[in-house]
Parts: sequence; structure tokens; C-alpha cells
Amino acid sequence: MFVIITYDVGEKRVGKVCKKLKGYLDWTQNSVFEGEITKGSLDKCLFELDQIVNPNEDSIYLYRVDNPRNIKKHIYGQEKNHSNFFL
Amino acid sequence: MFVIITYDVGEKRVGKVCKKLKGYLDWTQNSVFEGEITKGSLDKCLFELDQIVNPNEDSIYLYRVDNPRNIKKHIYGQEKNHSNFFL
Repeated sequence: MFVIITYDVGEKRVGKVCKKLKGYLDWTQNSVFEGEITKGSLDKCLFELDQIVNPNEDSIYLYRVDNPRNIKKHIYGQEKNHSNFFL
Repeated sequence: MFVIITYDVGEKRVGKVCKKLKGYLDWTQNSVFEGEITKGSLDKCLFELDQIVNPNEDSIYLYRVDNPRNIKKHIYGQEKNHSNFFL
């Protein structure tokens, strides 16, 4: 499946969330990760995120497309792939 | 179709981009808009964004799913729908 994860989390946790997601997906834009992932890895990733975030303050959105052919991506301007940035 | 638009634009332009997108989609998270839209409205929206952004600095990602049934959204923590925030 193809997923997009966007997040809006407290400053104290944003680094940890970002670092965790970097282990599973591509960091393509400020607080936006995307990529293909298996259900097992996604479940593991979400479980680990759950140990980091504060559900009363933070917000994580997961958009899931089971067949990657059903989603198209268009980039306008710069492709800001952060994945090669060291965090 | 269902679209997700994420953006990473210069401070001078972010307010204008956000205000423009609010006319077309739901502002669901910091620099994330989503919603159903017709091709005509999407083309108009993109044309108007093109008049605002600086392609050498800014980055707009458009994820497009033609059949809205092919994408599922899961929210973890808070649903931060900014659409009712006055900008």
C-alpha cells in the first residue's frame, strides 16, 4: 500500500516523530512523509508513534491507498526531499 | 476526485497560499489541505497558486485520487481542522 503521513505535534516531540518516521517512509516535506509500506510495518510504525505522541495535543493523519496505482503525485516548484538531511 | 495538497513555501507567501487554498479545500493541518474537487476547480486553483508561489524556493505537492473510495484517512490524536480559523 501507499501511505501519506502528515503530523502536527508539540515541539518537544516533533524530532522524535520525524526520526521514527524516517525509519519507515520518505520525508518529502515539512511534517509530510510518504511511501509504500506493508501492513505489518505500518502497524509497527503506528505502535511506535503511539509511544511518542500526546494524543491530547498532537495530531497525526494517515492517508492510505491500498493500490499505489490509484494515487498520482504532482510537484510544483521544488522537490524538497528531506530524507538525505541528517536529523 | 479527492486531493491532498501539502506545501512548504516562503514566509512572505504562506499566508496567501493558505488563504487561496481555503477557497477550494479543507485546511486540516499545518500546511495540509484536503477534499473533493472537480478537475475544473483544481485547474483554477493551481493556476491561481502559480501566480503566488516562487517555483525556485517554494514546494507544493498535489496527491490526486480519482475515486475518493480508494483513499482512507485515519486520525491519531487531535483532529486539527483549521478551516474555521479566521486567517
